[in-house]
Amino acid sequence: MKMDLNSDIGESYGVYSIGNDDGLMPHITSANIACGFHGGDPMVMQRTVARAKAHGIGIGAHPGYPDLSGFGRRVLKMSESEIESMILYQIGALAAFTRAQGAQLRHVKPHGALYNFAAQDMPTAKAIARAVTRFDSKLILVGLANSLLIDAANEFGLRAAREGFIDRAYTSSGTLLPRTEAGAVVSSAARAVQVAIQLMREGTVRTIDGKLLELQVDTLCIHGDTPHAVDIARAVHEALRAEGIELVPMLNE
Amino acid sequence: MKMDLNSDIGESYGVYSIGNDDGLMPHITSANIACGFHGGDPMVMQRTVARAKAHGIGIGAHPGYPDLSGFGRRVLKMSESEIESMILYQIGALAAFTRAQGAQLRHVKPHGALYNFAAQDMPTAKAIARAVTRFDSKLILVGLANSLLIDAANEFGLRAAREGFIDRAYTSSGTLLPRTEAGAVVSSAARAVQVAIQLMREGTVRTIDGKLLELQVDTLCIHGDTPHAVDIARAVHEALRAEGIELVPMLNE
Amino acid sequence: MKMDLNSDIGESYGVYSIGNDDGLMPHITSANIACGFHGGDPMVMQRTVARAKAHGIGIGAHPGYPDLSGFGRRVLKMSESEIESMILYQIGALAAFTRAQGAQLRHVKPHGALYNFAAQDMPTAKAIARAVTRFDSKLILVGLANSLLIDAANEFGLRAAREGFIDRAYTSSGTLLPRTEAGAVVSSAARAVQVAIQLMREGTVRTIDGKLLELQVDTLCIHGDTPHAVDIARAVHEALRAEGIELVPMLNE
Amino acid sequence: MKMDLNSDIGESYGVYSIGNDDGLMPHITSANIACGFHGGDPMVMQRTVARAKAHGIGIGAHPGYPDLSGFGRRVLKMSESEIESMILYQIGALAAFTRAQGAQLRHVKPHGALYNFAAQDMPTAKAIARAVTRFDSKLILVGLANSLLIDAANEFGLRAAREGFIDRAYTSSGTLLPRTEAGAVVSSAARAVQVAIQLMREGTVRTIDGKLLELQVDTLCIHGDTPHAVDIARAVHEALRAEGIELVPMLNE
Repeated sequence: MKMDLNSDIGESYGVYSIGNDDGLMPHITSANIACGFHGGDPMVMQRTVARAKAHGIGIGAHPGYPDLSGFGRRVLKMSESEIESMILYQIGALAAFTRAQGAQLRHVKPHGALYNFAAQDMPTAKAIARAVTRFDSKLILVGLANSLLIDAANEFGLRAAREGFIDRAYTSSGTLLPRTEAGAVVSSAARAVQVAIQLMREGTVRTIDGKLLELQVDTLCIHGDTPHAVDIARAVHEALRAEGIELVPMLNE
Repeated sequence: MKMDLNSDIGESYGVYSIGNDDGLMPHITSANIACGFHGGDPMVMQRTVARAKAHGIGIGAHPGYPDLSGFGRRVLKMSESEIESMILYQIGALAAFTRAQGAQLRHVKPHGALYNFAAQDMPTAKAIARAVTRFDSKLILVGLANSLLIDAANEFGLRAAREGFIDRAYTSSGTLLPRTEAGAVVSSAARAVQVAIQLMREGTVRTIDGKLLELQVDTLCIHGDTPHAVDIARAVHEALRAEGIELVPMLNE
Repeated sequence: MKMDLNSDIGESYGVYSIGNDDGLMPHITSANIACGFHGGDPMVMQRTVARAKAHGIGIGAHPGYPDLSGFGRRVLKMSESEIESMILYQIGALAAFTRAQGAQLRHVKPHGALYNFAAQDMPTAKAIARAVTRFDSKLILVGLANSLLIDAANEFGLRAAREGFIDRAYTSSGTLLPRTEAGAVVSSAARAVQVAIQLMREGTVRTIDGKLLELQVDTLCIHGDTPHAVDIARAVHEALRAEGIELVPMLNE
Repeated sequence: MKMDLNSDIGESYGVYSIGNDDGLMPHITSANIACGFHGGDPMVMQRTVARAKAHGIGIGAHPGYPDLSGFGRRVLKMSESEIESMILYQIGALAAFTRAQGAQLRHVKPHGALYNFAAQDMPTAKAIARAVTRFDSKLILVGLANSLLIDAANEFGLRAAREGFIDRAYTSSGTLLPRTEAGAVVSSAARAVQVAIQLMREGTVRTIDGKLLELQVDTLCIHGDTPHAVDIARAVHEALRAEGIELVPMLNE
């Protein structure tokens, strides 16, 4: 069995530092690198691609809404052609750094509010899938498992990586419980490990209201912006390996 | 004999429209397309690449300082690594649109204050040349004829396109007379035509103080932001063809 | 009888020019001046306040979403405290120019998508009203007649100016027909004049589906971004004066 | 004897946090609050004014170049009218928050590259002094002691606060040794204390090349972006009080 651990990195901006990229990279197998719209800047992208390449991690573009002051976490009502163009722009910008460094761009994962909106809005999901396809139809598109973004990726013939969360509570309809709700965020490494192993072994996750949800995932998200992010990443990494699961970049064959 | 006529296009932004791209494109052979920092945005880039491709014009990236409010016309003191990264970023962003549309990116021409600063500051010139080389060593780098940017392009083994101006006065040292000086800008199409033909036939230009300056150029710049831009473009285009000069994208072989 | 004609001006940005401010100002009595978020910049604000003051026009702040690339026409999901802070920021920025020039800030009118969203979302409406109140409780808050923004202004004890549109079609529920619908925009000056006079004389407007809607308004909006904006402004101005209606800044006593 | 300790605070932006504002505020007597151009945003400004007011600290605007990605540390060649307008804009924006909270705006201190450039470029210094004067001629303008910004403030009849640095090395010409030079930054609290007391008692500072420089200062800058910032602030605060020096906002009478 194989699994991928992905994390959002390279979200610092100018003098502003965020996340713990150096702490996370030894433990993950795919990196979603910000492209300058919700976070990241050309210097940060240059540096982050270099580090991800040095760690042998799968490199992906992590495009977001053009909203630095809101860190891409606020929905902005853009048209489909606006979304398609801005995704193309951001993928291209990041691809310049992978190209310059002889690294490979493997995947695209939308960020924040765009990721969540695309999970439930088909025009947005299709606009993203269309942009990815037009840039490079061999790229992997990452979306919430069971969401419309996965459907859109399939419709465009893209390889879709279904993403699962081990530090977030699920509702019985398969969506993530909003962060503002009680119990939405899991901060215990032990609990995250337990969820990860159940997902791998049983293909299920226990929802917030106690039901058992079937969930097939290709990659697990490790959040980098929580206090114990590195601890969780390390614990999950070690636990999965101890279970005999090979940790490799998403959809690796 | 061959010559290229280039113009800066795609500098509109959101609802803001600038220049007369549609009027210019029938008369030019190379387009320098803004990349979203000093002007342009993803929607504008998408549209401008499509139009340039439809006109069969050579497509280039036109990166500038990150200064939309100053339209990239104010020098910003950036480090060499900041310049290199931001040039890579902008080339990559534009290249996403040429790639998505099956068009070819042929050249890079820095914009405004960055172009002028790179003409006389070797660290800046080298940072630009390095970024272009790292992205694609077959790209052409456009710089002011006889300037340090041309030297930097040569040093990096890039093809360098030496640019001449037919609507701007030259000083006897080969630089352009600043726009703020009297007589700096030529607004007569007839005069521009005359300068263009003398440049082609004699390889010389008459300076503001009456001297004869030797000037070898590979491309002539047609400014798009003057009232008579389209008239000048048409007149120069027709005059050069009447002289038997073939108009083709820069350094076409 | 008295009426106010207001228009959005000062929305140019850097080298980008938009609207016909100089053409409109002789015909309007209130100016809503952009504050640098959706349009406008410090230089434009300085210049626009000077012109509005010279014309003796009532000066207002015209704050919008922080979305220059979308011109503030796209809803951005901001929290109430984010909206309150950004409105305070923008009012303060504009007030610096009225203060420096010895002019008076009279009103605040939200721009574009923020205006429309505040018309139907009470938390947003209240956040705006709270910001205006905290800055200066004697300022007038302009909102769509019969909308929640007017309710919020009243709740905070602000003077509320109810705005009517003479170049836009109304639905029978009192909202504006979206611009994307057929018949939404009136481009005939004669028709705009007729609507204006009926509003003044009868207090009614004919809706898109033929009903008669009662509408009490304190100010009429003259759009500046349409081809015939100046013609409409002049025609309405002259027609109202011919009817014996005095044109003065909104809620003038 | 009296002295003021000032520090740059409120430079966080969106999710990005920088500095240790809460740690510094108990030890300083004046706060220079970022205005959204080089750092800070409306939410941060709202919160920072509230905290500074709660601590009874003198509140000042800290305007900078419009360069968030460079944190205002890179010179941008702006015209005098551009500088004047952007300073007015930023002061006004901050003043909205002091006004809304019933706090008083006491001073203005330019940030970063603008501060340094204004120290040696009279047109820039005058543009800043003119903007401050036009907003409120009773505001204090803070500048490097012995610099052109102090001269400009005096010329405009503004109260000028001459700033000294106790954690930076001086050259014998009275300028600060650039940060890139060896020995430019003092990180020892003990050394900073010693410099502060000598400045207060003798009115002199020992330069990097061993000379004794006469220096009259009205306020001492405490940098907040160094690892030991809070320790230095506390040590200097306590040492000056132990010497019987009263710590009050700058130019307090």
